[in-house]
Amino acid sequence: MPGFTVDFIMISCSHTDMNRLDQLATLLRFPSISAQKEHAQDVSDCADWLVAKLTGMGLEAKACKTPRHPIVLAHSEKQEGKPTVLIYGHYDVQPVDPIEEWKSAPFEPEVRDGRIYARGATDNKGQLFAHILGVEELLKQNAGVLPVNVIFLLEGEEEIGSGSLSAFMKEHKDELKCDVIVVSDTGMAAPDAPTFSYGLRGVASADIIVKGPSADLHSGVFGGAISNPITSLAEIIASFHDEEGKVAVRGFYDGVAPIATWERSMWATVPGMSNDELAALTGVECVTTEAGFTGAECIFARPTLELNGIGGGYQGEGSKTIIPSSAFAKISCRLVPGQNPEHILELVEEHVKRHCPKGVTVEFKPGHYGNAYICDPNSTYGLAAQQALEDAFGHKPVLVREGGSIPIIEEMKRVLGADALMLGMCLPDARIHSPNENFPVDLFVKGIEMSQILLRRLGQQ
Amino acid sequence: MPGFTVDFIMISCSHTDMNRLDQLATLLRFPSISAQKEHAQDVSDCADWLVAKLTGMGLEAKACKTPRHPIVLAHSEKQEGKPTVLIYGHYDVQPVDPIEEWKSAPFEPEVRDGRIYARGATDNKGQLFAHILGVEELLKQNAGVLPVNVIFLLEGEEEIGSGSLSAFMKEHKDELKCDVIVVSDTGMAAPDAPTFSYGLRGVASADIIVKGPSADLHSGVFGGAISNPITSLAEIIASFHDEEGKVAVRGFYDGVAPIATWERSMWATVPGMSNDELAALTGVECVTTEAGFTGAECIFARPTLELNGIGGGYQGEGSKTIIPSSAFAKISCRLVPGQNPEHILELVEEHVKRHCPKGVTVEFKPGHYGNAYICDPNSTYGLAAQQALEDAFGHKPVLVREGGSIPIIEEMKRVLGADALMLGMCLPDARIHSPNENFPVDLFVKGIEMSQILLRRLGQQ
Repeated sequence: MPGFTVDFIMISCSHTDMNRLDQLATLLRFPSISAQKEHAQDVSDCADWLVAKLTGMGLEAKACKTPRHPIVLAHSEKQEGKPTVLIYGHYDVQPVDPIEEWKSAPFEPEVRDGRIYARGATDNKGQLFAHILGVEELLKQNAGVLPVNVIFLLEGEEEIGSGSLSAFMKEHKDELKCDVIVVSDTGMAAPDAPTFSYGLRGVASADIIVKGPSADLHSGVFGGAISNPITSLAEIIASFHDEEGKVAVRGFYDGVAPIATWERSMWATVPGMSNDELAALTGVECVTTEAGFTGAECIFARPTLELNGIGGGYQGEGSKTIIPSSAFAKISCRLVPGQNPEHILELVEEHVKRHCPKGVTVEFKPGHYGNAYICDPNSTYGLAAQQALEDAFGHKPVLVREGGSIPIIEEMKRVLGADALMLGMCLPDARIHSPNENFPVDLFVKGIEMSQILLRRLGQQ
Repeated sequence: MPGFTVDFIMISCSHTDMNRLDQLATLLRFPSISAQKEHAQDVSDCADWLVAKLTGMGLEAKACKTPRHPIVLAHSEKQEGKPTVLIYGHYDVQPVDPIEEWKSAPFEPEVRDGRIYARGATDNKGQLFAHILGVEELLKQNAGVLPVNVIFLLEGEEEIGSGSLSAFMKEHKDELKCDVIVVSDTGMAAPDAPTFSYGLRGVASADIIVKGPSADLHSGVFGGAISNPITSLAEIIASFHDEEGKVAVRGFYDGVAPIATWERSMWATVPGMSNDELAALTGVECVTTEAGFTGAECIFARPTLELNGIGGGYQGEGSKTIIPSSAFAKISCRLVPGQNPEHILELVEEHVKRHCPKGVTVEFKPGHYGNAYICDPNSTYGLAAQQALEDAFGHKPVLVREGGSIPIIEEMKRVLGADALMLGMCLPDARIHSPNENFPVDLFVKGIEMSQILLRRLGQQ
């Protein structure tokens, strides 16, 4: 089994599972980081590998060119009278820094303690590959005939805002026509709590750049008379929240719907989502929420304004006594139904400009954004999905909204008219977007089974 | 004239001045960068050259070993009944990067438009060498007899914090015994505004590290329930100043003396130091000062708390939607007489801890520090220095305090008991610590003259 470490082959699993894992490891070895130009070829190579895999299974598959990274599109032979299920996923991954915190190299998959460690293991290669293998096994079991028509739509730009997918969907609207969408790119509350997500937060990001003197200045020769861009930026950031933890941007909460009573009751029972559990999981002393809401409620159904990065001046060893010429921050808001991302960015920009201190100037650069999404978990397809989860995992699913964002889901609803069944397998400790991302091997195996049950049940609708 | 460019020999100056410049150019050719290990031998070679020069003049000179770079110590033959003047300077220089911005190589001195360009031209080789030549010419004029006893103390670690000088001074206290200290390592307001500095700000630096979750978190999966270390750090930084631009740390201004009326009047006339001139020089729209003070007053005589650097989270291209696990800031205070640096660091630490938001922890790491310094500009020696400046430059000197810090001056006062006459010739556009550092040739020549007048006048006290 070339390329695997000793740890990898020491786990006990069947020959079938070894073969499944072997294929997943091959997929995980592509450093398909969509954000970094130097990895463009790796992203493309990963797409080609998926096309070869899907073609080999008996689907018609191709890598479609886009302005940036290819979209992999595949479909089974069309059978009239059967519903069409579009399975969406993404094969691009997040950057890997800080690289020194990884216990094993991010693109050299390694199994330790029953989990496979690699960038993309959970987000999203592991989950999308469970569906690919699910379909492959259904095809083998039934001599190439599936219970539904299947379309795979696998993009390479999800981690950078799905920039090409939107235009692609509109251009290929007929080819993508479907009755329901299946996505496994959301959270799973716990290994024994299969999770059906019926909502997603939206997102809106921006860069803030504060500029002061035309060059770095000696802090002795000029300090006291010149506004410090770092201090000014900090003052802007500190103005973003009030003392109750609410976002202090005017109009930010306009249109935000209250949380339903059944949701508050359901969410109080979701494993791992109590305030104490969230604190323990993330390693903080206590959760800190908007006043009047639990941690789960804030994550599932309340908007945020987060700082994702900050930089300016001297960051090296020791000290350099300067007033830097500029400083920057990277922010992103998570949004809920009722909030329009473009409008939110306008409100934030207005806030930033209003709070810019004297003596410096501020530039606000809007970044990527996407709408929040919500659907009815108890539709016919929704109930079929809930049953598939229960059958595969042996537990009634929990119903949640997702704190994260998959803006393309909301756009698919608008363009293709179909709702998305979000059956995520991302455990709270999967460390997606962080060092040591991982995916439990048994979840991967159950995911393959769940995919098969789901497609059979959807075929019965 | 080996090594000089055409430009160099094309300036019109006397044979004497050419010889003076030739010697300075030789001194400037040593790449005596104290911060960089690969230049240790160059620093040492430079010290040896100075010892040879001083010995050749008729002084007793030696290069004294220290844990890092040598200290050059020289003295004239002791004449009882004459005051002893210690001339302090440093022969080490700053690094040269960004090297591509230099118009001529930093260690190949070139004269253009009446200025000599090289690293160290002003800071501090040009200035200290003016004193060396001043003493040499006095010796020649008077058959080897000086109007005062002279000690040269020339260190090689000023640009890296004078680490060895403190212990050296204590060990050689008797040998360094003196009545007054002369230093030319401070600013000169303008070519026609000879400047006598009678104060220096102190400095106290520290790092602040805010820690939140044990690893970077997905801002969708957790955002809303977890304190963001960047936001928390920004809140701490924003708490450092009040709305009037005063440092809001409790007790920060305790013991700070008011600015004297004569100082306010004098400083209002210093060339280049009006609010408008400061803004134009630094490229900001307007200066921003502590309420009730001009820019010059804030720089000369008010303490500050500056942010020198900040970092945390994602700083790369595009966006990465994380809640980072930590964020840091580098701060330094400039201090004025009456403030104790160690106590100030304690007060800032207490402030930081009191303002640390819930859900994160904060670490405060004190860095290097040094005391502020002030002396009476109208002491007997001070008046002699003022007269020497007027005689040499043809204008009444301006009296200022220096915004920067030379902590060793205050330590000399404590250890050797002598005050320092700071007669700086660093023009605002000398570009010290930057590419294209330069020193006007006529300032160098006038500096040599000033040194002679000064020593004669001090000899009359």
